[in-house]
Amino acid sequence: MELLVVKEGRIDYDGSAIRSHWAYRNFGILGNSLVVFRGKCDVRVEEMIDIEDLRQSKEIKSDDMVHYIIEVFDLVNALFASTLQKLFIAKLCEVLEQYGVKTSRKGDDIYVNGKKLSISIATVSPVSVKIHIGMNVEAKGIPAGVDAIGLKELGIMDIEDFMERTGKALVAEFEKVKKDSLKVRWAQ
Amino acid sequence: MELLVVKEGRIDYDGSAIRSHWAYRNFGILGNSLVVFRGKCDVRVEEMIDIEDLRQSKEIKSDDMVHYIIEVFDLVNALFASTLQKLFIAKLCEVLEQYGVKTSRKGDDIYVNGKKLSISIATVSPVSVKIHIGMNVEAKGIPAGVDAIGLKELGIMDIEDFMERTGKALVAEFEKVKKDSLKVRWAQ
Amino acid sequence: MELLVVKEGRIDYDGSAIRSHWAYRNFGILGNSLVVFRGKCDVRVEEMIDIEDLRQSKEIKSDDMVHYIIEVFDLVNALFASTLQKLFIAKLCEVLEQYGVKTSRKGDDIYVNGKKLSISIATVSPVSVKIHIGMNVEAKGIPAGVDAIGLKELGIMDIEDFMERTGKALVAEFEKVKKDSLKVRWAQ
Amino acid sequence: MELLVVKEGRIDYDGSAIRSHWAYRNFGILGNSLVVFRGKCDVRVEEMIDIEDLRQSKEIKSDDMVHYIIEVFDLVNALFASTLQKLFIAKLCEVLEQYGVKTSRKGDDIYVNGKKLSISIATVSPVSVKIHIGMNVEAKGIPAGVDAIGLKELGIMDIEDFMERTGKALVAEFEKVKKDSLKVRWAQ
Amino acid sequence: MELLVVKEGRIDYDGSAIRSHWAYRNFGILGNSLVVFRGKCDVRVEEMIDIEDLRQSKEIKSDDMVHYIIEVFDLVNALFASTLQKLFIAKLCEVLEQYGVKTSRKGDDIYVNGKKLSISIATVSPVSVKIHIGMNVEAKGIPAGVDAIGLKELGIMDIEDFMERTGKALVAEFEKVKKDSLKVRWAQ
Amino acid sequence: MELLVVKEGRIDYDGSAIRSHWAYRNFGILGNSLVVFRGKCDVRVEEMIDIEDLRQSKEIKSDDMVHYIIEVFDLVNALFASTLQKLFIAKLCEVLEQYGVKTSRKGDDIYVNGKKLSISIATVSPVSVKIHIGMNVEAKGIPAGVDAIGLKELGIMDIEDFMERTGKALVAEFEKVKKDSLKVRWAQ
Repeated sequence: MELLVVKEGRIDYDGSAIRSHWAYRNFGILGNSLVVFRGKCDVRVEEMIDIEDLRQSKEIKSDDMVHYIIEVFDLVNALFASTLQKLFIAKLCEVLEQYGVKTSRKGDDIYVNGKKLSISIATVSPVSVKIHIGMNVEAKGIPAGVDAIGLKELGIMDIEDFMERTGKALVAEFEKVKKDSLKVRWAQ
Repeated sequence: MELLVVKEGRIDYDGSAIRSHWAYRNFGILGNSLVVFRGKCDVRVEEMIDIEDLRQSKEIKSDDMVHYIIEVFDLVNALFASTLQKLFIAKLCEVLEQYGVKTSRKGDDIYVNGKKLSISIATVSPVSVKIHIGMNVEAKGIPAGVDAIGLKELGIMDIEDFMERTGKALVAEFEKVKKDSLKVRWAQ
Repeated sequence: MELLVVKEGRIDYDGSAIRSHWAYRNFGILGNSLVVFRGKCDVRVEEMIDIEDLRQSKEIKSDDMVHYIIEVFDLVNALFASTLQKLFIAKLCEVLEQYGVKTSRKGDDIYVNGKKLSISIATVSPVSVKIHIGMNVEAKGIPAGVDAIGLKELGIMDIEDFMERTGKALVAEFEKVKKDSLKVRWAQ
Repeated sequence: MELLVVKEGRIDYDGSAIRSHWAYRNFGILGNSLVVFRGKCDVRVEEMIDIEDLRQSKEIKSDDMVHYIIEVFDLVNALFASTLQKLFIAKLCEVLEQYGVKTSRKGDDIYVNGKKLSISIATVSPVSVKIHIGMNVEAKGIPAGVDAIGLKELGIMDIEDFMERTGKALVAEFEKVKKDSLKVRWAQ
Repeated sequence: MELLVVKEGRIDYDGSAIRSHWAYRNFGILGNSLVVFRGKCDVRVEEMIDIEDLRQSKEIKSDDMVHYIIEVFDLVNALFASTLQKLFIAKLCEVLEQYGVKTSRKGDDIYVNGKKLSISIATVSPVSVKIHIGMNVEAKGIPAGVDAIGLKELGIMDIEDFMERTGKALVAEFEKVKKDSLKVRWAQ
Repeated sequence: MELLVVKEGRIDYDGSAIRSHWAYRNFGILGNSLVVFRGKCDVRVEEMIDIEDLRQSKEIKSDDMVHYIIEVFDLVNALFASTLQKLFIAKLCEVLEQYGVKTSRKGDDIYVNGKKLSISIATVSPVSVKIHIGMNVEAKGIPAGVDAIGLKELGIMDIEDFMERTGKALVAEFEKVKKDSLKVRWAQ
């Protein structure tokens, strides 16, 4: 899994990055990839993946987020997508713990003191598994009714360094997952 | 995913429970299952799944362990097996956290203060994904050279309750993973 | 497989219900589902799934039909879709037999005395298997040249009860199919 | 799907024909196949596929049966195996109907007047789907406690012709299933 | 795999033939197919499959080409698509060798004396593997900067015969591949 | 795909190297691999993969061969195995061409002047695709009735260099196949 941490400039997330081959089309990264970038979040209704959100006409918005776009080509399956997503969220919680932040994970949501830090979606394209994770840098521009929190409020001020560390941690996790899948014989 | 916590009696783990349909053959549980039981661990060489262990002639042993045997029929794939395994290990760490135990996860290993609490393996049979997780109740009967720790040393004395709580937590995690995989539309 | 029999009001079938997640989007039913409803049938050309029909510019129409929309997420494969479709059609014939109606099944078509009672299509979306079955309540509004028959002409007057009975029968069939797939060991 | 109806001599069924490539190893038939033959049935414990039977120490026996061994290589999946099995059983019931025999299908079992006419199992090998169906020619040598019936008691005396007709019907059904799976466009 | 060599008239290739079921929609050919035809090539941007070409704004053009459109339904997987494509290209080189033309294959490109003879793409639809191969009849209308060559310059003047021979060779290759996949037992 | 060319010592091929994870068990190579080695060939009946050979009681023997053992974990499918095998054979022919040897490929067999140079088999294990290719160094110890030829008779005397060159060529071919599978968008 190739890692790209975009440090120069902002990229706003409107949901279209969830499409297949986004990393290759935009950055020339072939194969499994994790692109970490920073920017606004405002998902257009036609790009919404979570039908539960669509049914409830939810807004998915934040003024400033760290975004993670993952694409894996090894296996096209929604259950695998959902499992990998939760593992990545758990890993992010473990990294936050290293920053001294005590988190509570509920499936694919990260909470700190009952406040929502992140959003996430996992699905399949016809050729890959795609995951988006967004973490508030500051809890601004969040839809009404959502009690949110951001990285800065948690004392994480060096966002670039955070992007780098979390990006590396997720890639290392995936490489470990993959390696372990190759070193076991099958069971009867 | 059906949960069975075996509270009466001990079941020793010799590695054969990693075979497909073990839960159905032994307990009549059909389909996805998690069986939690307690007993010795002494994996016979012919049942060893981890070829790395085989190559190094490692012993896999403990006098008293809580064992988790998971079988999932939805998807037969080693990468999925390895991913689900890591997620389950992360979940167990989260539950241990609720007990006040600070853990460190390295892939599928749980460490507490640098001491090894658990062993685990994930693989496929021709019809299912199979995962074994074993957690020391006490660090006895461990192979020489392994610096191990057990639940009791961590202050977790009510092992039955621990089996129940962790069993429920893993099943709830899987059900959330599955539910989320069904509520998303595919991406282009 | 969750069953929903829509008894209040009519839902016309224009073909769009064949898309993935229709049951979840419209009724909040997550996962495998069978929705039974009653309404007109007039499939728009852009929703036609059967390319043979498209090539022959066939019309797919009826003034009053019982509709079955099935979605299965376990396995995304067109051969499986086609097999499950034929099994469901065979099951419907068996239920009709209980009503004293002697049917003749030709693949996915049900005939009574040489007259066509039903239409059906089975295909895949990128995340699921989808099947539509429509059975004439009355043989009205049928394309010219099709010698059709309806449930009422066969003496089945309580359509709601028929929808309920057939819906339950199809779900029970699927559950049996699934259960049996889990209780067998693999063969060498 | 290639059909072979073995008319010369008897072949006893001990369960080993459920293994992959049985038709190719024994008759040189490459690819999807249906072999119909006649002989005793006495399934050895080590060849039993149904774990439910194993758990109940059931015997699977009959002195004289028509056997159908199906192998399909298109898709290796237990749910598909179970679905195709039920469809084939339903088709056999439809053919029996043509003989004037009124049957009752319960999943993969055929009953006539509450008496059991058939046995069946469906599973996967690592490369194929395998199905066995056995139909009593006479209800002799059946395990105690099973109320069985045979084809001859139903007035079907020309067993060879029955083997031919049912064999052709099953192959035709499969070919229709396959053809239909190829003529549909995918749905969104 | 059914072969159709279109000898009457020209069919221009604009890229849309890469869509699923093109052979069935246009020629009524069900299942695996190879359609060989002759015509211009000018791939519209919205039909371009190779994202590398899209990123470089390449033109894909030729005034006169022999086109091969392959569709295989057995297995929907991009790695398989790419492997089959290379095998077909290698086979075309072997046939050209029979014409006395010495070729050099680089992946999916055929060169003669350093000049480009062919273009090709392989991908998946949600239900099939699709491959396009185009071979210049004459090196006319080629994008600037591409040093191309055509069949006529290689002394192959009877294009219809070439279409026939290569079409048969590719189909024979595929049938051999398929047959061999069915005659091997699985390995432990 | 990792390449290992075993230059020190001989390894005889008895067929057991076709089993899954052979390269990892014996050389510690994780994941996709190609191991090239030199040694006798004498396949034990119980290791024979080709059922056609088994049916004809063929012997598979040679006193001195270059062996290629390939394992690919990306996709477990016999049709893919057979396709990749043919592509690798075609590639070997292309390398032989560079040595000035004119070959004739028939599926997975290489002939030179009507004499058989190679043997090959491709199949699946439950977790991988496995391919064996063997090329005679000298045509000695070949089963009676087989008109064979070896590399030395073709003027290829530096066998180690040949092992190196062909090994690199096959790995490069696979990497190109894989890369191309990742750079294409899916087709409708």
